Amino acid sequence: MLNKNVQTFIACDSEYEDAKIVLFGAGFDGTTSFRPGTRFGPTAIRNESFGIETYSPYQNKDMTDYSYFDSGDLELPFGSTTRVVADIAMRSDQILSDGKIPFMIGGEHLVTLGQFMAVKEKYDDVYIIHFDAHADLRDDYLGQKLSHACVLRRCYELTGDDHIFQFGIRSGDREEFVFADEHTEMHKFNFEGLEETVEKLKGKNVYFTLDLDVLDPSIFPGTGTPEAGGVTFEELRKAITLVCSKLNIIGCDVNELSPQYDQSGVSTAVACKVIREMLLALS
Amino acid sequence: MLNKNVQTFIACDSEYEDAKIVLFGAGFDGTTSFRPGTRFGPTAIRNESFGIETYSPYQNKDMTDYSYFDSGDLELPFGSTTRVVADIAMRSDQILSDGKIPFMIGGEHLVTLGQFMAVKEKYDDVYIIHFDAHADLRDDYLGQKLSHACVLRRCYELTGDDHIFQFGIRSGDREEFVFADEHTEMHKFNFEGLEETVEKLKGKNVYFTLDLDVLDPSIFPGTGTPEAGGVTFEELRKAITLVCSKLNIIGCDVNELSPQYDQSGVSTAVACKVIREMLLALS
Amino acid sequence: MLNKNVQTFIACDSEYEDAKIVLFGAGFDGTTSFRPGTRFGPTAIRNESFGIETYSPYQNKDMTDYSYFDSGDLELPFGSTTRVVADIAMRSDQILSDGKIPFMIGGEHLVTLGQFMAVKEKYDDVYIIHFDAHADLRDDYLGQKLSHACVLRRCYELTGDDHIFQFGIRSGDREEFVFADEHTEMHKFNFEGLEETVEKLKGKNVYFTLDLDVLDPSIFPGTGTPEAGGVTFEELRKAITLVCSKLNIIGCDVNELSPQYDQSGVSTAVACKVIREMLLALS
Amino acid sequence: MLNKNVQTFIACDSEYEDAKIVLFGAGFDGTTSFRPGTRFGPTAIRNESFGIETYSPYQNKDMTDYSYFDSGDLELPFGSTTRVVADIAMRSDQILSDGKIPFMIGGEHLVTLGQFMAVKEKYDDVYIIHFDAHADLRDDYLGQKLSHACVLRRCYELTGDDHIFQFGIRSGDREEFVFADEHTEMHKFNFEGLEETVEKLKGKNVYFTLDLDVLDPSIFPGTGTPEAGGVTFEELRKAITLVCSKLNIIGCDVNELSPQYDQSGVSTAVACKVIREMLLALS
Amino acid sequence: MLNKNVQTFIACDSEYEDAKIVLFGAGFDGTTSFRPGTRFGPTAIRNESFGIETYSPYQNKDMTDYSYFDSGDLELPFGSTTRVVADIAMRSDQILSDGKIPFMIGGEHLVTLGQFMAVKEKYDDVYIIHFDAHADLRDDYLGQKLSHACVLRRCYELTGDDHIFQFGIRSGDREEFVFADEHTEMHKFNFEGLEETVEKLKGKNVYFTLDLDVLDPSIFPGTGTPEAGGVTFEELRKAITLVCSKLNIIGCDVNELSPQYDQSGVSTAVACKVIREMLLALS
Amino acid sequence: MLNKNVQTFIACDSEYEDAKIVLFGAGFDGTTSFRPGTRFGPTAIRNESFGIETYSPYQNKDMTDYSYFDSGDLELPFGSTTRVVADIAMRSDQILSDGKIPFMIGGEHLVTLGQFMAVKEKYDDVYIIHFDAHADLRDDYLGQKLSHACVLRRCYELTGDDHIFQFGIRSGDREEFVFADEHTEMHKFNFEGLEETVEKLKGKNVYFTLDLDVLDPSIFPGTGTPEAGGVTFEELRKAITLVCSKLNIIGCDVNELSPQYDQSGVSTAVACKVIREMLLALS
Repeated sequence: MLNKNVQTFIACDSEYEDAKIVLFGAGFDGTTSFRPGTRFGPTAIRNESFGIETYSPYQNKDMTDYSYFDSGDLELPFGSTTRVVADIAMRSDQILSDGKIPFMIGGEHLVTLGQFMAVKEKYDDVYIIHFDAHADLRDDYLGQKLSHACVLRRCYELTGDDHIFQFGIRSGDREEFVFADEHTEMHKFNFEGLEETVEKLKGKNVYFTLDLDVLDPSIFPGTGTPEAGGVTFEELRKAITLVCSKLNIIGCDVNELSPQYDQSGVSTAVACKVIREMLLALS
Repeated sequence: MLNKNVQTFIACDSEYEDAKIVLFGAGFDGTTSFRPGTRFGPTAIRNESFGIETYSPYQNKDMTDYSYFDSGDLELPFGSTTRVVADIAMRSDQILSDGKIPFMIGGEHLVTLGQFMAVKEKYDDVYIIHFDAHADLRDDYLGQKLSHACVLRRCYELTGDDHIFQFGIRSGDREEFVFADEHTEMHKFNFEGLEETVEKLKGKNVYFTLDLDVLDPSIFPGTGTPEAGGVTFEELRKAITLVCSKLNIIGCDVNELSPQYDQSGVSTAVACKVIREMLLALS
Repeated sequence: MLNKNVQTFIACDSEYEDAKIVLFGAGFDGTTSFRPGTRFGPTAIRNESFGIETYSPYQNKDMTDYSYFDSGDLELPFGSTTRVVADIAMRSDQILSDGKIPFMIGGEHLVTLGQFMAVKEKYDDVYIIHFDAHADLRDDYLGQKLSHACVLRRCYELTGDDHIFQFGIRSGDREEFVFADEHTEMHKFNFEGLEETVEKLKGKNVYFTLDLDVLDPSIFPGTGTPEAGGVTFEELRKAITLVCSKLNIIGCDVNELSPQYDQSGVSTAVACKVIREMLLALS
Repeated sequence: MLNKNVQTFIACDSEYEDAKIVLFGAGFDGTTSFRPGTRFGPTAIRNESFGIETYSPYQNKDMTDYSYFDSGDLELPFGSTTRVVADIAMRSDQILSDGKIPFMIGGEHLVTLGQFMAVKEKYDDVYIIHFDAHADLRDDYLGQKLSHACVLRRCYELTGDDHIFQFGIRSGDREEFVFADEHTEMHKFNFEGLEETVEKLKGKNVYFTLDLDVLDPSIFPGTGTPEAGGVTFEELRKAITLVCSKLNIIGCDVNELSPQYDQSGVSTAVACKVIREMLLALS
Repeated sequence: MLNKNVQTFIACDSEYEDAKIVLFGAGFDGTTSFRPGTRFGPTAIRNESFGIETYSPYQNKDMTDYSYFDSGDLELPFGSTTRVVADIAMRSDQILSDGKIPFMIGGEHLVTLGQFMAVKEKYDDVYIIHFDAHADLRDDYLGQKLSHACVLRRCYELTGDDHIFQFGIRSGDREEFVFADEHTEMHKFNFEGLEETVEKLKGKNVYFTLDLDVLDPSIFPGTGTPEAGGVTFEELRKAITLVCSKLNIIGCDVNELSPQYDQSGVSTAVACKVIREMLLALS
Repeated sequence: MLNKNVQTFIACDSEYEDAKIVLFGAGFDGTTSFRPGTRFGPTAIRNESFGIETYSPYQNKDMTDYSYFDSGDLELPFGSTTRVVADIAMRSDQILSDGKIPFMIGGEHLVTLGQFMAVKEKYDDVYIIHFDAHADLRDDYLGQKLSHACVLRRCYELTGDDHIFQFGIRSGDREEFVFADEHTEMHKFNFEGLEETVEKLKGKNVYFTLDLDVLDPSIFPGTGTPEAGGVTFEELRKAITLVCSKLNIIGCDVNELSPQYDQSGVSTAVACKVIREMLLALS
């Protein structure tokens, strides 16, 4: 008898019960105003993950020594942003209820809101570390409150002042930077100050949201709104290893890969390696 | 003193007052479930229209002998489908109020609903001719009523039985075909029966909606859901000329070009030529 | 508890026991001399199959009314052609042993040899219907006997004269056409004579091998060696429906999709629809 | 001792002295107003020609039975149209002087002027058969007389009335069609009337210029200005076989392949097969 | 009444009278010998500029606080290089006559000659700062004096010794480097020495010509002749800010974007951001 | 009389007798498990080499001052890995026998084995310098011993301990890194230690194998398995200049360019420049 065709991110093939970390994809890009395509991110990452190794020479760790579960992608109702956010929150909530860490793969950055709502429901006091090229602090975008360009603003409304730490930001309208001055801790352009932030947040509940466009588009062109002047892969690799190995991460997401804008496949391969390094550092 | 940079579809550069036909773009693809990109349709068509001639050897007519106005593209709030449909309806309504024919360029097929609502508001008794590969008659799609896959169903709710004539349909779920048997006049696969339909609708108010994926993907690959087995360009050209020259078209749209899926530019060039032939036949 | 991420060709999600037809992918292109890439065929087809409907308006049948099983893709050892052919034969043999029809998705055309060896093992007297642009009758290719360009010659060595019926052939070296004159029944360029062939083979065991490049490259550009002058989708659709519904097909394959050569996705969509029509006609 | 790396169109590897037909490439696109790229045509055709066979099942002839010479590509001074035309004329003149047929591969259509000037120099009375989507009869284009859009008009100035026979024309400005009515024999849209033309020109000196965009862009998307509504490959194949086998062709060219607009490689493969069929029909 | 469709570079929508800086596009690539496509640069930049913000976090300035005018693209007669240069000179001359700074967007680098001729006509003593990967100092290229490869040599003939300062140069033939040793001040590979140059030129009239291929192709692959080993975006950003904010720039250009060679859109986005930073630094 | 069309890497057009270095292409990718395409490397490099200059401003040397011979590409029998390796060994052996340095352009990395077998046959004591992202030290891959993933392991079996020096390695399975600890001298991630290695190997016979994926994929995306975190072009340029100018290189290869994965052409241009710098440093 032949088996069913199970497909997972590489080495994320344990049983659900055994896994401490549970992946799922939220391939939504319905509020993307400029160039869509992050909906294809989760599938591309899963398929291409077999091009990388399970072993990391950076951390000298191997994924096969740990247990991860990949629960596949949500089927999301394009056209109804509210329901999309709710569907994501429900999936994250289930994983959290089972005492596991939800590891979401976007999708546009708005998907973070759904998962963070579930996280905030479970953990009262939670801090956010946010790597991104964009501030994402608009109050609304073309009149919409539920937009990728507003996602950290919506999260801010849940956390209040002094709970959001932003790194790598190099694009936004003037008002977003003014808002950040007052309400978040924004580190522009790079990761300066990250070590101090990590020191400060040790032992606290931390949600980590990684917009891959924090990377320079030379190494990550596959994204909707590429912003020159970003961090290098090596800088990001060190930063995510620091965050994921030193802090109490209770949930995280990696988003904004639009694989079709990079026909070389490099962006997808970068995303896979970033996820591998995060999974290993979290273990 | 230098002039501002006005950009229009080729030869659509008359004054608004002089034009009988007014173009506008509705680059929305927010409910597209499979492969997005029709948002880029209107701009691509406008830019590439300068690759075709204003003269048609088929009709022996030249666009420079007539007056057309291109009012540019709507800026649509992705993430709020309801507001998008409303914005479209307002633009169409303004053009209709000025006694002109609105000629909308999509965007996904849902945009038709906005314009048809305005048309139906003005004209009590109006018939729809619908060329498409897909039936678009679902009652809902993943729970959404406002979806490209439901657009003709929503129009049907405005017109009632015996007012919708569909041609070229070759894809849909079983229920859509059952629904069509009872409520619309569906001609599967090609344009058989079109001449009789035109004969029947002569003198009546007719709205014409053209989903370009009615074409075979060999000549029109640049679309989100290509369906082999479509009509040839020559068959479509004859059909649109017939419809636009013989009937009292009070509004129309051309939609579902996703230019980025056809890097040869052929699909966009085809869309431009289709629009030229329609504009000339309507004049 | 969350489920594992099972991925199948659309609607091929029954239990193994219930299925009469079992799909599997053989993504091998190791002997491809010109342009490789058919290794990506099976995955592309499975992923993109969700862009088509389960219902066929041509046959008025729906896949959800039948049981199909998708057993995923073989992992094949590139670099050792002999072992690849053996691995395929083993998978086909298992499916045949369970009394089911193996439906293989290539891969280059050489994969047919592996499956046909298993078929020939089980069924003593078996005929081959072969749709292709290329004769594939070379005795060797650059000294290699196990080559896509020789696959029908190798099959011929198993069947002997008068057992192979070729249609659509429009490319090959002179010797292949001479060989065909003596040993196979070759119908050049199109499907003329197919009805007679079907009549003749009724009730016999028939293996059906479909090289998708029999299609004209206008509708199927995504293949390694495109040959202008092929059949239309409509011609192929009728031909496969005829073969699969009228004959006793005991195994079949569909091969030579190289999805990366057609960035519009049309070729993959065509392959999906061809497979749907075959699955429905076989049921 | 190792040999130098000689590269030719497939099977065009005879000695110069033995060849009756001499190929050369004129990869010029300097007057192309819309989308450039035909400069890459000759190299692409030479490289990809090894993807086709030397044997034609249509004509039952094999290139290996004849002698052809490929003299490589001219290095043309972009920026000076006059010198480009002169350089082409010199190459053609040399081939003609040696009693051979020059077979030029473009490049944009203007290259025809250079070769036709040499032909007209040698043969006083010469007729032109012209397959194209475009009339190419403009007197000037943006003030330039030496433009791809004017090339047949320039040739006309050399031949006078009743010497140019145009087929497949489906695009141009109104004046070009008016001009054709008076000065050339234009067959719009397809090859109707070609047999009569061939009959009429038997025994005369005929120059044959083939703009590949006469083909429908479904099968030949790789060109700067694709025009839907063209002829099929099969129609073109029959037409070129007729022209090249029945008439006294004293020079010819095949132009307007822009390989980079068709990443599937189909357009280049089509060009190669067209050239093979012409070479065989001329032999 | 609906408005005409005015399209500009983002935030360059003031009235002509109010603007100190006037943009225009010169999409010419007629002397490009290797890979054409810079003709598409201006349109791509204008369309994609809406993907960037008007606010610069680097300079803490917002384009909406200043007045810029975009006068659209010149329609240039391909095939006649002399006339192209003259047409450009006329447009620049008009802008200069109105007391404004012409900001030209190429096109290949030859377009600089047209504008610099107009600049030199108005300002007797003018210096050139030139960022580029290529020396562009050839006396002729394949016999042509008006070539992108000769443009700085032609400018040199207008300025004489000691007026041209080149930075980032890393490609050319040996003679160009010898020429630079004697007649220009060339800084190879990077921006070393730029601060001293800026110091030296303070208060003088300076023309600034920026060939974007000075950037490393990792961040700017969309150009005809990519040269590895270039400067980073951050290095260029600082350099252009220095030049444009400290010197008396009386005209400038940004050229050599070939958008179609970078399907990710990164190169075009980079060009847009470079232009924004220059416009802000000039204000 | 016209000449045959000889095509070489730029400036590699001397007579065989005069050349000290002889290039040839080995476009094999038959064991590539992930993404094929290096078979297209040699042809792409040869065609695109005319986009670079013969002069290097880095070394202040010009290729036209030296003699190189390009002997074209081997025609390799895909499907039989053993014969491919043997064919390569024979070509290398012939060049070595004539007292010249074989400079092979791959192809996948397995091609190195063929050439190194010939080198080892001639030179008893030979050391290997290996630049790569991947360790390539597997004992077998999916059961195959002759695989790109095993090539250095096979070479190791010929050289024994302490003869292989690896740089830039950043990917592999755990066992490969363990193996390297015991049997090779592996420098992970970059070129640290290269100067010491060069010092140590001075005067010895050294074979140099360069897998271009040692470069960061930002500058070299055109490869089958891109690995973020690689060296910059400038780092590689210095390293190859050091190796090729200071050591007694008796053979070398450059491999793993897959040009079709980088449609910008940057990767191919990088490969060309790397080869130019190596050829100049070896002279």
